[in-house]
Amino acid sequence: MKTIGIITPGGDAPGMNAAIRAVARIAHSRNFKVLGFEKGWFGLLTDSKKILSPRAVGGIIQSGGTMLHTLRCVPFKTDEGIEKAANTLKTYNVDALVVIGGDGSFRGAYELSKKSDTNMIGIPATIDNDVFGTEETIGFDTAVNTAISAIDKIRDTAISHERIFIVEVMGRKRGFLALHIGVAVGAEIILIPEEECKIEKIIEVLETNSKKGKQTAIIVTAEGVGNTSDLVKEIARHTGSEVRLSILGYAQRGGRPTGRSRLLASLFAEKAVNLIMEKTANQVVGLRDGIISSISIEKSINTKKPVDLSLLKLAETLSI
Amino acid sequence: MKTIGIITPGGDAPGMNAAIRAVARIAHSRNFKVLGFEKGWFGLLTDSKKILSPRAVGGIIQSGGTMLHTLRCVPFKTDEGIEKAANTLKTYNVDALVVIGGDGSFRGAYELSKKSDTNMIGIPATIDNDVFGTEETIGFDTAVNTAISAIDKIRDTAISHERIFIVEVMGRKRGFLALHIGVAVGAEIILIPEEECKIEKIIEVLETNSKKGKQTAIIVTAEGVGNTSDLVKEIARHTGSEVRLSILGYAQRGGRPTGRSRLLASLFAEKAVNLIMEKTANQVVGLRDGIISSISIEKSINTKKPVDLSLLKLAETLSI
Amino acid sequence: MKTIGIITPGGDAPGMNAAIRAVARIAHSRNFKVLGFEKGWFGLLTDSKKILSPRAVGGIIQSGGTMLHTLRCVPFKTDEGIEKAANTLKTYNVDALVVIGGDGSFRGAYELSKKSDTNMIGIPATIDNDVFGTEETIGFDTAVNTAISAIDKIRDTAISHERIFIVEVMGRKRGFLALHIGVAVGAEIILIPEEECKIEKIIEVLETNSKKGKQTAIIVTAEGVGNTSDLVKEIARHTGSEVRLSILGYAQRGGRPTGRSRLLASLFAEKAVNLIMEKTANQVVGLRDGIISSISIEKSINTKKPVDLSLLKLAETLSI
Amino acid sequence: MKTIGIITPGGDAPGMNAAIRAVARIAHSRNFKVLGFEKGWFGLLTDSKKILSPRAVGGIIQSGGTMLHTLRCVPFKTDEGIEKAANTLKTYNVDALVVIGGDGSFRGAYELSKKSDTNMIGIPATIDNDVFGTEETIGFDTAVNTAISAIDKIRDTAISHERIFIVEVMGRKRGFLALHIGVAVGAEIILIPEEECKIEKIIEVLETNSKKGKQTAIIVTAEGVGNTSDLVKEIARHTGSEVRLSILGYAQRGGRPTGRSRLLASLFAEKAVNLIMEKTANQVVGLRDGIISSISIEKSINTKKPVDLSLLKLAETLSI
Repeated sequence: MKTIGIITPGGDAPGMNAAIRAVARIAHSRNFKVLGFEKGWFGLLTDSKKILSPRAVGGIIQSGGTMLHTLRCVPFKTDEGIEKAANTLKTYNVDALVVIGGDGSFRGAYELSKKSDTNMIGIPATIDNDVFGTEETIGFDTAVNTAISAIDKIRDTAISHERIFIVEVMGRKRGFLALHIGVAVGAEIILIPEEECKIEKIIEVLETNSKKGKQTAIIVTAEGVGNTSDLVKEIARHTGSEVRLSILGYAQRGGRPTGRSRLLASLFAEKAVNLIMEKTANQVVGLRDGIISSISIEKSINTKKPVDLSLLKLAETLSI
Repeated sequence: MKTIGIITPGGDAPGMNAAIRAVARIAHSRNFKVLGFEKGWFGLLTDSKKILSPRAVGGIIQSGGTMLHTLRCVPFKTDEGIEKAANTLKTYNVDALVVIGGDGSFRGAYELSKKSDTNMIGIPATIDNDVFGTEETIGFDTAVNTAISAIDKIRDTAISHERIFIVEVMGRKRGFLALHIGVAVGAEIILIPEEECKIEKIIEVLETNSKKGKQTAIIVTAEGVGNTSDLVKEIARHTGSEVRLSILGYAQRGGRPTGRSRLLASLFAEKAVNLIMEKTANQVVGLRDGIISSISIEKSINTKKPVDLSLLKLAETLSI
Repeated sequence: MKTIGIITPGGDAPGMNAAIRAVARIAHSRNFKVLGFEKGWFGLLTDSKKILSPRAVGGIIQSGGTMLHTLRCVPFKTDEGIEKAANTLKTYNVDALVVIGGDGSFRGAYELSKKSDTNMIGIPATIDNDVFGTEETIGFDTAVNTAISAIDKIRDTAISHERIFIVEVMGRKRGFLALHIGVAVGAEIILIPEEECKIEKIIEVLETNSKKGKQTAIIVTAEGVGNTSDLVKEIARHTGSEVRLSILGYAQRGGRPTGRSRLLASLFAEKAVNLIMEKTANQVVGLRDGIISSISIEKSINTKKPVDLSLLKLAETLSI
Repeated sequence: MKTIGIITPGGDAPGMNAAIRAVARIAHSRNFKVLGFEKGWFGLLTDSKKILSPRAVGGIIQSGGTMLHTLRCVPFKTDEGIEKAANTLKTYNVDALVVIGGDGSFRGAYELSKKSDTNMIGIPATIDNDVFGTEETIGFDTAVNTAISAIDKIRDTAISHERIFIVEVMGRKRGFLALHIGVAVGAEIILIPEEECKIEKIIEVLETNSKKGKQTAIIVTAEGVGNTSDLVKEIARHTGSEVRLSILGYAQRGGRPTGRSRLLASLFAEKAVNLIMEKTANQVVGLRDGIISSISIEKSINTKKPVDLSLLKLAETLSI
């Protein structure tokens, strides 16, 4: 009986548990034994693992976080760490390791693949959506909806007080979340790291709106843009309006996964097990052109995923 | 100045308002005048309309239903009705009519197109997802999530009481909703009109589960399958278990649209206005292979959209 | 070391787990040993139980249902059943049994108290709110909000289609849920078993509304009123309008408890343990006049809790 | 015909619209004319108002914010401002002014009452719950649930990463929100301005938990406690753990009101109109001992509402 390992070495994302469940059950139905390594790479270094039988992954499809836990693990990044991890995989005859996570997790998997015969298969799961090779990552849709739900609430106050609100959303260095969230909440301005937006432009939009009788504004900004409190001051100074800042924070990372995040988790898992069965090595699965496919881990981690700037343009038109 | 009309002649779906807003604002930014006809075809027959300026469609992106209202309108289906509607379009120099709705709405648009020079552009918006030419309709993602959220609650009771629950979801004659919902809630069984499932098979699955220690089961069934109360009795008789029925009902049709339904509304609207500007006539816009494109209304209404039966197979494996 | 047992013998309600957790931890902090009997009375008959240490009840405060499960248990209602249960309590030296549930559960506890020296303490937890001795039961507030959230969605469709919707909510034979939900959603009509409402009156209200330009109506009806489909037909016949029926169903019973249901669970649990420590026997705890207090189980089960009919009057004024 | 004015002069709270609707409709049913002054006191200074007919307040029961808008209005606080406002009330023969808001709004009403014959009736609506004379304010229950829902999500990440999270909730200078939220999410520690908690105590609790195998902790802190980022550093330094901060922010102020906030709005409104009809002057309505009653505005604004410290004790026991 062949063995598949599962690991979630990076930040958690909603739908990771759905992916763990799906990999475990699909693999089981095809006669694999499934091991879950706990606390990320740490579990490979310290031999912390459990058997993931179909029953062991019951009742988790709807829960946020990762049942395998995760931990930042510095020693893994050394040669010895990699060596140790590779040995653990060998000891347990792990034929393939399914790495559920983002860019950082796949970099780890890539390094490990150089020292190990185990097939590394990446399943993209991060709310940031910044993985090349897939149009959407597990958790992204959930985080978008969590943020929308918060901003819909903030708009109540914004309208009642006729105020300007700056809402900072997650996304690390990238603007995928801010862009989708901004379009969906009808943000008057969206700021992302991929496209500089001068303060003069922002003031101009706000003043034009004000003349049209639109005193309220929601500015959605990606955390990667930075300097949010400076922005608050600048806008207050130029417009004379009350400006409020809200940093949505960690709630965006948790919660029950949406239908789409759960479905993606199931489809990615199926593809991952298929790749393992057909011995296609070291791939990241993904959704491209409406199809579940895969590319090499190496290509995924070495290519920057482009953001769709036309959405920014569209958002501008939509908030007139 | 050219004129675009907007109409929502069928059942409502979450995200219709986001689509109305997007069409109105994009069209306005390209120098169209925009008229909204109220209460579906009835508005074309009775001249009930309003100007949709950018301000008139403010504050609706997050609301369910349709601000233009809708009404079942028998007289429209007669030759005189069509004639009258065509005349109204002519009177107001409506160059293009954006029809937001499902299959039935597009059939009406097609009939009208035969008697009118106005370009008919369909934007698919129905929770049922049963429109050929698009992988997803506006409102589908929202309805899936509304149902998931209800079924996640039902599972609490199902587990506490170790009962079997049959949950009937919407979808008219098709199984798109049931299939996506079923996969996302981890349903033990999914019943759709497109694939017959014998009662013997259902009993077998339930008995196998019971032997594995899984007394609770969620059976998601599409309304198109019918005979739900017979099913309740049959299963109760064969298994000796308590079986409960829950028909999710109309709440699935309303509510705040999800991020995805709002985004789709915006993208479809942009495509619709583009088609109008480039004078491509009588099209239904849609998402295909990850791209926003369009096909002719005629083809859309005369082709049956296939359901992805491989998802049914996947769901089976996922609920072992 | 003294021993407290916990049991949930009736229908589940959101917040039951919060109550189990609170009883277990408070009791533990006061040096009790805590046993949870599983599957309701069945656990007392078959000796199915587990130790509820503080860790064993971790991570459940936010989950619906009951971690102790529940089962309808016919043999308990016989003399032998009661005898067997009393013996189990004796065998494990259970000084007090905390019974979390509604009326039916407390009737069982009362019968058992006649044959057992164990102190029976009832914690009212049912979405129906039909327990005398408390203004509010655990789970009621959650069910009210679940129903509101569904009806807010239904209103989107009702308004878009200018239809009349009849929404049947839970509550067994009583109207507490319907009344609170009806007021909160701004229902045009509320029907409860405690106050007859003639069809003529309903028609009159609908016609008056229609003349005022209010075509849409939401009629909230308690399941205890019965005959909902007849009502649909009657109203359709009299008004000529389209009338739709939605039975909210089991989703009302599950889901994450609201803050209020969780708080009530914690306060009731504290009172329950206090009663046990001061050896006040066979009580049901409750919220009365803003204070956590208790009355005898006997009085609770033999008194009908009155519904506040003035709310019905208020609702009428509020929907003009 | 007598006239009632309505005004919302302070921060918005969910359920304010339900209160406006209820006052307007109840007053209308008792033959009052109802005027809504817009943008808080500013509306009294500038004569910005609208007639609130029963239809004008339709469709708002479920919306957050205030349809009358609100504005910080410095000139009102001068003698001339008060004079001007009193004159406006006289000009429109406003017999009673219903002031919906918190402490600050009632202070304004009190000052105005000294210069005006108009009866001032306060309806407590603030998420902070810091109004003396009522156990609960409109909006409080909603804000508690919004925060709970966010923190339940944060706990997913906290558990997955075995981290300590500090979550700052609103409440201005008071701890009502933090206390109720903390109990409901099962916070390991709750910090409120009313009860000092030394850093040593916090560290001790965290270390004890850690020894019991509980690495994750949620610390709920009221914004009134201040210095949250210092706290993060201190705890990180002492425990060596990763500590994260999340400031929940403005989303707590908006959103659809819960059933309880809507019900309270309706009951408070009814009481307010009753007081006006029986000419009881200058009162704040409230919920006390389970009864809707009222006290004088003067007493309300000059008395500090006590926080229930026993809840803090209970929370400690519940998180063992």
